[in-house]
Amino acid sequence: MNQIDGDKVFKGFGEIGKPVDLVVVAVPASFVPDVVKDAAENGAKAAVVVSGGFSETGNDRLENALRQIVQTSNLRILGPNTVGIMDFYTGVDTFFIREFKTSLNGGSLKNMAYPKPGAVALVSQSGALATYFIDAFAERNGGIRAVACVGNQVDVKAEELVSFFVEDELTKVLAVYVEGVADGRSFLNHVLRARKLGKQVVVLKAGRSKTTEKAAYTHTASMVGEWDVFVGAFRQAGAVVVESVKELVDVAYAASLTNFPQGRRLLVLTNAGGFSVSSSDLAELNGLELLQFPEDVIEGLVSLRSSGKIPPIVVPNNPLDLSGSATPESFEASYGLLSGLGDIHLLMPLHTPPAMNESVVEKLVKKAKAVHKTVLVCCPGSSEYAALFRRLFSENDVPVFRDLEDALRVAGLLAKTITPQRDGFPHVRSAAAGSAKPMSRSALISLLRENCLEPVDEIIVFRESEALKAAREIGFPVVMKLASEKVAHKSDVGGVVLNLSEESQVVEAFRRLMNLAAKLGVEGDGLVVQETFKGLELIVGGKNDRVFGPVVTVGLGGFFTEALRDTVSLVAPAQPHEVKTMLQYLKHKQLLYGFRNIPPADIDTIAKAVTNLSNIIIKNPTITTIEINPLTISHKKAKAVDFRATLTTNT
Amino acid sequence: MNQIDGDKVFKGFGEIGKPVDLVVVAVPASFVPDVVKDAAENGAKAAVVVSGGFSETGNDRLENALRQIVQTSNLRILGPNTVGIMDFYTGVDTFFIREFKTSLNGGSLKNMAYPKPGAVALVSQSGALATYFIDAFAERNGGIRAVACVGNQVDVKAEELVSFFVEDELTKVLAVYVEGVADGRSFLNHVLRARKLGKQVVVLKAGRSKTTEKAAYTHTASMVGEWDVFVGAFRQAGAVVVESVKELVDVAYAASLTNFPQGRRLLVLTNAGGFSVSSSDLAELNGLELLQFPEDVIEGLVSLRSSGKIPPIVVPNNPLDLSGSATPESFEASYGLLSGLGDIHLLMPLHTPPAMNESVVEKLVKKAKAVHKTVLVCCPGSSEYAALFRRLFSENDVPVFRDLEDALRVAGLLAKTITPQRDGFPHVRSAAAGSAKPMSRSALISLLRENCLEPVDEIIVFRESEALKAAREIGFPVVMKLASEKVAHKSDVGGVVLNLSEESQVVEAFRRLMNLAAKLGVEGDGLVVQETFKGLELIVGGKNDRVFGPVVTVGLGGFFTEALRDTVSLVAPAQPHEVKTMLQYLKHKQLLYGFRNIPPADIDTIAKAVTNLSNIIIKNPTITTIEINPLTISHKKAKAVDFRATLTTNT
Repeated sequence: MNQIDGDKVFKGFGEIGKPVDLVVVAVPASFVPDVVKDAAENGAKAAVVVSGGFSETGNDRLENALRQIVQTSNLRILGPNTVGIMDFYTGVDTFFIREFKTSLNGGSLKNMAYPKPGAVALVSQSGALATYFIDAFAERNGGIRAVACVGNQVDVKAEELVSFFVEDELTKVLAVYVEGVADGRSFLNHVLRARKLGKQVVVLKAGRSKTTEKAAYTHTASMVGEWDVFVGAFRQAGAVVVESVKELVDVAYAASLTNFPQGRRLLVLTNAGGFSVSSSDLAELNGLELLQFPEDVIEGLVSLRSSGKIPPIVVPNNPLDLSGSATPESFEASYGLLSGLGDIHLLMPLHTPPAMNESVVEKLVKKAKAVHKTVLVCCPGSSEYAALFRRLFSENDVPVFRDLEDALRVAGLLAKTITPQRDGFPHVRSAAAGSAKPMSRSALISLLRENCLEPVDEIIVFRESEALKAAREIGFPVVMKLASEKVAHKSDVGGVVLNLSEESQVVEAFRRLMNLAAKLGVEGDGLVVQETFKGLELIVGGKNDRVFGPVVTVGLGGFFTEALRDTVSLVAPAQPHEVKTMLQYLKHKQLLYGFRNIPPADIDTIAKAVTNLSNIIIKNPTITTIEINPLTISHKKAKAVDFRATLTTNT
Repeated sequence: MNQIDGDKVFKGFGEIGKPVDLVVVAVPASFVPDVVKDAAENGAKAAVVVSGGFSETGNDRLENALRQIVQTSNLRILGPNTVGIMDFYTGVDTFFIREFKTSLNGGSLKNMAYPKPGAVALVSQSGALATYFIDAFAERNGGIRAVACVGNQVDVKAEELVSFFVEDELTKVLAVYVEGVADGRSFLNHVLRARKLGKQVVVLKAGRSKTTEKAAYTHTASMVGEWDVFVGAFRQAGAVVVESVKELVDVAYAASLTNFPQGRRLLVLTNAGGFSVSSSDLAELNGLELLQFPEDVIEGLVSLRSSGKIPPIVVPNNPLDLSGSATPESFEASYGLLSGLGDIHLLMPLHTPPAMNESVVEKLVKKAKAVHKTVLVCCPGSSEYAALFRRLFSENDVPVFRDLEDALRVAGLLAKTITPQRDGFPHVRSAAAGSAKPMSRSALISLLRENCLEPVDEIIVFRESEALKAAREIGFPVVMKLASEKVAHKSDVGGVVLNLSEESQVVEAFRRLMNLAAKLGVEGDGLVVQETFKGLELIVGGKNDRVFGPVVTVGLGGFFTEALRDTVSLVAPAQPHEVKTMLQYLKHKQLLYGFRNIPPADIDTIAKAVTNLSNIIIKNPTITTIEINPLTISHKKAKAVDFRATLTTNT
């Protein structure tokens, strides 16, 4: 029997004499199928295939060979092209990363730090990201349950691993890095299940930059990319969706140690003036609101100041800057007074001033644990004393950050997280593939009405006298436009006339539009005389997503549609509270609160309209796309001004 | 004679027997004036007043007492309310931060790390920020020239310190944190001078969040806040303006070690797939462009792959992922082939895989130094081996980051920095204060014409026959609107009619608008018949800023004005190349490249128009505000569609 470094070497699995639990395969790709086959035939239960050189480099043939072994045996395969798994409780570790590495001058250096066993599980489609994640947790003294990297997913998928960790008792927070998912709704239901069990889920999706290659055209179906739908769907299921690896670490770490906030009112307590100003700027950037101290609290602070418990130069404002002469006792006294306020507390005791020492940690931790708030600490600096502050906070299970920017970005993300109120995302039938034809206007109007989506009053006319009669019936001022479904951007060709406030103008407009219709060959479709309804113009649409099935999209419409391309998406059917939170992710959400002569839009009204549209697409699987643009919101009313839908021809 | 810890103690400065160079005053505020006065009377040259409790807490009386001593003696004062200065060449250090601190369990811990002497000077209005800055530089092995904190600036101002460091031979990069500046143009001229001397300037301005309290009204004068003008002006002068303390450190550090890029084409070289995908997403977020490999380079990579110099699974794309099996030699070979490409190189050799070792540093550094590109390195991780990689890069003066996000944010900021081509910002006379009256339309039209800002053709009419004649002369379709300067938002009251393409429509519109004018009591001002000119609508305006004098603002106008509030500002007179770079800072700059039926706007045309407007406000100091909105851009033409100006009544 051969040996390497004292370990026995076998020529094949048959020679071992009993089935093995786990095979780690790290031979060149072309030898992998034979090795795996031998393992399977000799009763091995699982294999981690580390080797690369399969579908990721175009070698689909080799990957299919592995797939076939899986299908014809009881062996489960993780990979190929993966570093595999690391379990911080059992110590199982298939990573090819060595803990120590010998530097060129001969010294042995720590190559990878191992965090303590903890509550965060990571499922990752990248080994390098996983390594970074582990390292970052070790540095901040956070605990990890286990890490699993999926590679090319020839057998075990990210989804199955997520499902495992959702049910796993040791896991409290799930961090997920994926480049794509296969069955969207099934994945979302794992997230929901986690949230129902009181666990948090943090997700990073790669490939955002691909969405810049959006089609130039304007309708929901082509405007909303894969990334947008993914992000919307996961947020809707209650996950925190992040935009970088660092955020994945930051949020997973914080989520494992503190409550999620009930709102976005922030309290900041520090002994550093510059950071106090910065925190106020960064709070705004991250959508947080600095709470105002109530009168009695201000009086309390003034009396702390008079009695010398906080320095005499403290001004009782939020952020509360206790100044460089603050002592641990100043922090204790003031946080005692303030800890019941707001939703999120940012504590930032700078370690450097002479009056400060690490006893501040115990004093703050005690109060932080007594309140049900989101408490985040920031202790910047890389000195030993700064590290001591951070270690003490983290040992007491209070999340602590080195950088203010990171702490406030995390706070902003947590504050916008949805608490799901649903049992699951139903698996619904998507529209059958096939070519699509436009739905008739009258059928669409009925459908919208049945679903409480009121179109503006309108009458289709073919003669001048009908136009006049219609205008009188609807009430001036009216809008007139081409009725034909065949003209997509009617206003671009001069096919829409607004503000017709007199009969003579209606006559005039009728003649002009009929001439235009004749030129475009659509005079047979007539014209529409329509009620004038002004307000905030939204786009609301539904489509069938390849991964998530029917989804609904809402955003800034009308003139803004192509200019801003600012929409959010949800899986249908959506619930009003989900829509309301998702609206907070619109980049231009301030427009909802009114601008110029547009009054503030009622958020409940928007949420109801989006919910209703999402129901339409769920209940009518023959609809392939539907869009209202603009859906105009004025105070508590929503009216569908223009709309279109397509039906599959293939049911 | 009394002693403390073996040091002599004097009862007053007279007792010392000779003038002292520098006094550090750290007694309670109320005793400060007496101490400082005694020092001044005994010939002391300078004092750093550390004590707080002056104007920052409302005690202006005490601060005035100090001011008076300055005015009546030769003593210069830094402070009060400052930690003072730290000079890393001479060792002068007035900070009250101790290098070591005794922890509660008795051990002595490093409380503050001291970086090596280097090329970066910091002028800061916050001591805590300065401490963070010093600490962060020590951690990443960057060098600092000196740090000076200004406190309440009773005598020595930030500007004077900046001016000192600009001329200082040891300083190559100036980092500045200010909450406000007194004389804007004089400060900008220091920045220009620094840039002319080949130095870089990085600025953080506090108080961004204040700008959210912008007035609800729409004109340039009220829409553009203090922060916006500051940021625009400093960028125009060639400074990098950052948004957080961390960015201040990151950019100053990178600027001290690498060239500024000539463009925004990015090359990424790594051995980690996940980071490769992330870098592509982050490049887009930061306005960078991943360069495409030319054919010959792709062929070169393929042949490196065939010859085994890079791993067989490498796909020749940018980002170039050499995979976990890449060796230092793979990096050397591929960077040798790629190092001539693009403007910015991001090198990201992950230390963890077994095939990697620190010899990669020397190989990459050698090539990086041979090309005149912006080279940034990212080595994530907190292990000793990761730290070794970072240390080696930094010892070789190649800037290295722990986090990909930070490296790419820095790259994005550097790529948008202006290289000034001017000698100075002239000190010009601002409009005298006093009430303002509207400038007459005809005078304004002449003024615009004289400055190559062509208004759309228009004729003022009072009768129906004049309107018809005007429309024929200008050419159909025409626009008609109220002429009165007294109606600010004409379209809101129905005072604008577009697309009049026939005589009958002109007659109709004339009657309607004259009725409206009568109702508003402005019929005496008549109506305007105007050429129809469609394109991208900008707002371009000028005003007198309290700090920077005449400034010009450009941004998205027309319907977008209040909805997006997306503008950038420059000090007048502005130069075309400055305007062009500043346009890159518009949040919705993609709108300049066309959308829907709006063609791409010619950037040179915009730059010229903004320059011309900035000349108007410089040459006409009686103008208090001027605004063109919209200035409509269609291909290479700009036309002023609506405009207004006010004149001071007090010259």
